[in-house]
Amino acid sequence: MTSFDLRLSTLRDHYRSGETTPRALIAQVLARAASLNDEYRLFIRLLSEAELEPYLARLDEFNADSLPLYGVPFAIKDNIDLAGIPTTAACPAFAYVPAESATLVGQLIALGAVPIGKTNLDQFATGLNGTRSPYGKCRNSVLPDYPSGGSSSGSSLAVALGVASFALGTDTAGSGRVPAALNNLVGLKATKGLLSTAGVVPACRTLDCVTYFTATAQEASELFALTASADPADAYSRANPQWNDASAFGKPANFRFGVPQQLEFSGCNESPELLAHVRSTLEAIGGEAIEIDFEPFLEAARLLYEGPWVAERYSVVGPLMEAQPDAVLPVIRDVLAKAPGASAVELFRAQYRLQELKKQCDAVLDGLDCVLTPAFPRPVTLAELEEDPVSANSLLGYYTNFMNLLDYAAAAVPGGFMKNGLPWGATLFGRAFTDQYLLGVAASLQQALGLPTVGGNSCDYRLPAPRARNDRVRIVVCGAHLEGLPLNGQLTRRGARLVGKTTSSPDYRLYALPGGGIQRPAMARVREGGAAIAVEVWELPSMELGSFIGAIPAPLGLGKVELADGTWETGFICEQNGLHDAVDITHAGGWRAWLAESAG
Amino acid sequence: MTSFDLRLSTLRDHYRSGETTPRALIAQVLARAASLNDEYRLFIRLLSEAELEPYLARLDEFNADSLPLYGVPFAIKDNIDLAGIPTTAACPAFAYVPAESATLVGQLIALGAVPIGKTNLDQFATGLNGTRSPYGKCRNSVLPDYPSGGSSSGSSLAVALGVASFALGTDTAGSGRVPAALNNLVGLKATKGLLSTAGVVPACRTLDCVTYFTATAQEASELFALTASADPADAYSRANPQWNDASAFGKPANFRFGVPQQLEFSGCNESPELLAHVRSTLEAIGGEAIEIDFEPFLEAARLLYEGPWVAERYSVVGPLMEAQPDAVLPVIRDVLAKAPGASAVELFRAQYRLQELKKQCDAVLDGLDCVLTPAFPRPVTLAELEEDPVSANSLLGYYTNFMNLLDYAAAAVPGGFMKNGLPWGATLFGRAFTDQYLLGVAASLQQALGLPTVGGNSCDYRLPAPRARNDRVRIVVCGAHLEGLPLNGQLTRRGARLVGKTTSSPDYRLYALPGGGIQRPAMARVREGGAAIAVEVWELPSMELGSFIGAIPAPLGLGKVELADGTWETGFICEQNGLHDAVDITHAGGWRAWLAESAG
Repeated sequence: MTSFDLRLSTLRDHYRSGETTPRALIAQVLARAASLNDEYRLFIRLLSEAELEPYLARLDEFNADSLPLYGVPFAIKDNIDLAGIPTTAACPAFAYVPAESATLVGQLIALGAVPIGKTNLDQFATGLNGTRSPYGKCRNSVLPDYPSGGSSSGSSLAVALGVASFALGTDTAGSGRVPAALNNLVGLKATKGLLSTAGVVPACRTLDCVTYFTATAQEASELFALTASADPADAYSRANPQWNDASAFGKPANFRFGVPQQLEFSGCNESPELLAHVRSTLEAIGGEAIEIDFEPFLEAARLLYEGPWVAERYSVVGPLMEAQPDAVLPVIRDVLAKAPGASAVELFRAQYRLQELKKQCDAVLDGLDCVLTPAFPRPVTLAELEEDPVSANSLLGYYTNFMNLLDYAAAAVPGGFMKNGLPWGATLFGRAFTDQYLLGVAASLQQALGLPTVGGNSCDYRLPAPRARNDRVRIVVCGAHLEGLPLNGQLTRRGARLVGKTTSSPDYRLYALPGGGIQRPAMARVREGGAAIAVEVWELPSMELGSFIGAIPAPLGLGKVELADGTWETGFICEQNGLHDAVDITHAGGWRAWLAESAG
Repeated sequence: MTSFDLRLSTLRDHYRSGETTPRALIAQVLARAASLNDEYRLFIRLLSEAELEPYLARLDEFNADSLPLYGVPFAIKDNIDLAGIPTTAACPAFAYVPAESATLVGQLIALGAVPIGKTNLDQFATGLNGTRSPYGKCRNSVLPDYPSGGSSSGSSLAVALGVASFALGTDTAGSGRVPAALNNLVGLKATKGLLSTAGVVPACRTLDCVTYFTATAQEASELFALTASADPADAYSRANPQWNDASAFGKPANFRFGVPQQLEFSGCNESPELLAHVRSTLEAIGGEAIEIDFEPFLEAARLLYEGPWVAERYSVVGPLMEAQPDAVLPVIRDVLAKAPGASAVELFRAQYRLQELKKQCDAVLDGLDCVLTPAFPRPVTLAELEEDPVSANSLLGYYTNFMNLLDYAAAAVPGGFMKNGLPWGATLFGRAFTDQYLLGVAASLQQALGLPTVGGNSCDYRLPAPRARNDRVRIVVCGAHLEGLPLNGQLTRRGARLVGKTTSSPDYRLYALPGGGIQRPAMARVREGGAAIAVEVWELPSMELGSFIGAIPAPLGLGKVELADGTWETGFICEQNGLHDAVDITHAGGWRAWLAESAG
């Protein structure tokens, strides 16, 4: 194996075959990390042999089959606690030694992963570029004139330079996505609250997320599935609904993705082409592009730094800044300068405005499965950052700042390369609790784009047949729930929309059920003598399906129905016991046709 | 009919029979309202004949069958807009004449209800007692030495004194519940965002709710079902999930209700007895009382006035208070005095603390269907309020202030009478989006207590058989999902809990399905030759059922299963087509027994 191929599946194979061991591999990546650090400044601290020993010793009792992340090296942004190792947040004066690891770090270690070091970052995670650190500026993994991106600068480099299979970042305003995009990585900023932030130095506690950097979306999916869980130690933690579990990851069937009408490229003429290629690739894999009004998203983005949310950062950094102004970088001091003066009245008013914007943005997302944007309007150079550290930094956040304010899930995905070789990234985002779906779309996109992943490996993983699933479910209806018929309101009241009219596979018979009240049919699957029955496919919020089922009387129920194209969807089935006195109306080919026939 | 019996069902009957007409009835209640106003100060303004005419004229085209609220008189708290009539918020200097009615008022008028006037309130809805108004103090509807309660003072009196079938209040800290409890009414403070607040003078915009005062919980259920809907004009509006629709209202089956371990009665020796009676009545109708730690709820309550939320009120009243200090009552000025100084940092810190408390409180509610508390520790007298306008007022909010901060649904319910005749109320509260369930419990409680409703009418409505439904659903499992069996994790990962082990009705046969992988059985209902099959009943969050169904392969599905006690619950059913090669194992009586048998 090359030292660059640290993907989870590759490592697992090599551990299984005995080609390497965790001890050997970790020693190899540590040596490599140490040799890279002078140039890239990616680590604030690498773990010593003695510090690593407990993690490696524990693995002796396990193997690659008994621990899902057995011997997987990972790097930790240095605003996330690792027990016994200083957490600096890139501010030596702020440093403390935590007794406990952050919840998420503890989860990963328990799963077999091995922490190799604490990575450099923009001080207090305030920045998107990777140059705001007393531990050195992080250059880009590919081109030396460009920054790594930040604030999770070192974490992105650890994966991009092949010294960690994955790395933990944080993301309040884009810190887990911008550096992913600039280094050919997937950066998963999952739905707020699904990955614990207990043990993380807050930037804006109401917005902060921990993120994963990986080479592929499939790895991000696996890591998310292993670690998304409610944490009693994190007040902002939320339970992950099971429509967003591992089984939701896969190829999306036909889907609708938004693309902003208003696109900003800041004069770059390569970014538009790269975005257009990603868009047409998504279309080629079954996506329908829908242009959306992006103005409310952009207004929400502006609230983050122009509004009183800087007071959240100040509530963490303020005491130190007041006591030792020089301990905090001048650029960070400038960003936080107006925070102490912000009033509660001002904050409430900003929160009201945000709520209004969220309402508008939610309405935009309502009929979509996800949204595609560039990760940034264009890359910026180190020289530009030197010249104007604030504006050049802000430009990188143009497409990222709104995400946590609006409570959306997002992933940066490699989208191609600039002509000079610099990685260029796209962002896919969607409603909260659709993380695995987004990763399924991202994985399909990676596969279809066929770009080399970090280390020059091809993205050769196999995705399962269509099964990506978000917070909407499809159900097949064949009777009184059809559009315009008496029970259709049970669907429309739940926010359902008609997604298609088709027929079942030719394996069903249709019956008119006996009984008073609203007339209902039933489909019954048969081995022989079946026919194709006209059906409609509706899509409704998954959370509404429970009450929908509650209203279905015996002998009907919801099971699986095979459609004309051979796919199976959730739909109406019937118990045999209810068909005793039913009338076989298969000849009509559908309920509507039979209603017309029997009325005529 | 007596002028006191204005319940929706009574009015409807009288309109249908022709015993009265909207014009006649409205004239009658207006005359009565005018005659009461000198003593009770309940109306700031009654509508004139000319102002009423458009509402009455419109009704000429309808009747009691074509409009659900045909000719129903209602009163509107004077911080809610009625088109063309001044909104004062009990502050003449603040008054304005709205061009449009509040969304909710418009909905009610469209449904046939007739607004009769704007009711008195504690100025800017800041108070819980009803005496803080330049339009006069509102005395209690029963005892003259007691206040009506507030801030929705006049609205509670309008229903209690028999001049409106229902009235609109608002409730930020308890303003829709305290006056209900003091006047023998139901006060529904529904889940935030389900009843539009567009067109309401904000108190705390992040917390405000519009409320219904009614004689009975059944009427509150009807009104809520008619008007709960997402409003694009209200940024805080939320869609109502359909498990919380009209069909969820009914008698609860066995349920679990919390009762605080820490009870505060402020020295009153009647309140404990009244609460004990309500508690035992709930137990008699199928409730199991569970003592809960109330401290986190009380700490959240204290945040409302001790913390920076007063800045929300100030953001509305502040400009007037600064320009014309004397236009605002001194007691309101005192409450808001510290608001301008509150900083954004302070507010964020309070919001963090609230989030921590919400986490603790949510955990308490997780295993419960609702919680019972007194509506207040004890009533206070007008004399006490005169002597100490702040402390006496605060006492009334002891059990109410936390509700909106924690995002819970609540209803005040008549709970009995003090020995002096003063009404005493209880509160039922629960998770957001369980309003109809709470009202079902409240209705069952009203029915079981058998107290006279306002006007001396008995609470004689008939509730349907058990069907009250909250945000949890029950499903009957008979196979691999049973406790400890291979698919049980599909339930436990969704937060399900086992609520009972029983058998089906004796109408089923049990089959072992063919096929590899995890062994599964199927139950099939039969007309003859059936047996009782061992099953388990699990309860899981309704929002998780959609993804659960997604994972069920053909030929299985979820339909309705009859249990030994004759009730039907959602549970596993099977298509006949899947039983061709199945083995009939009915003789075993259940899947566990068969597994043991086939293993032995």
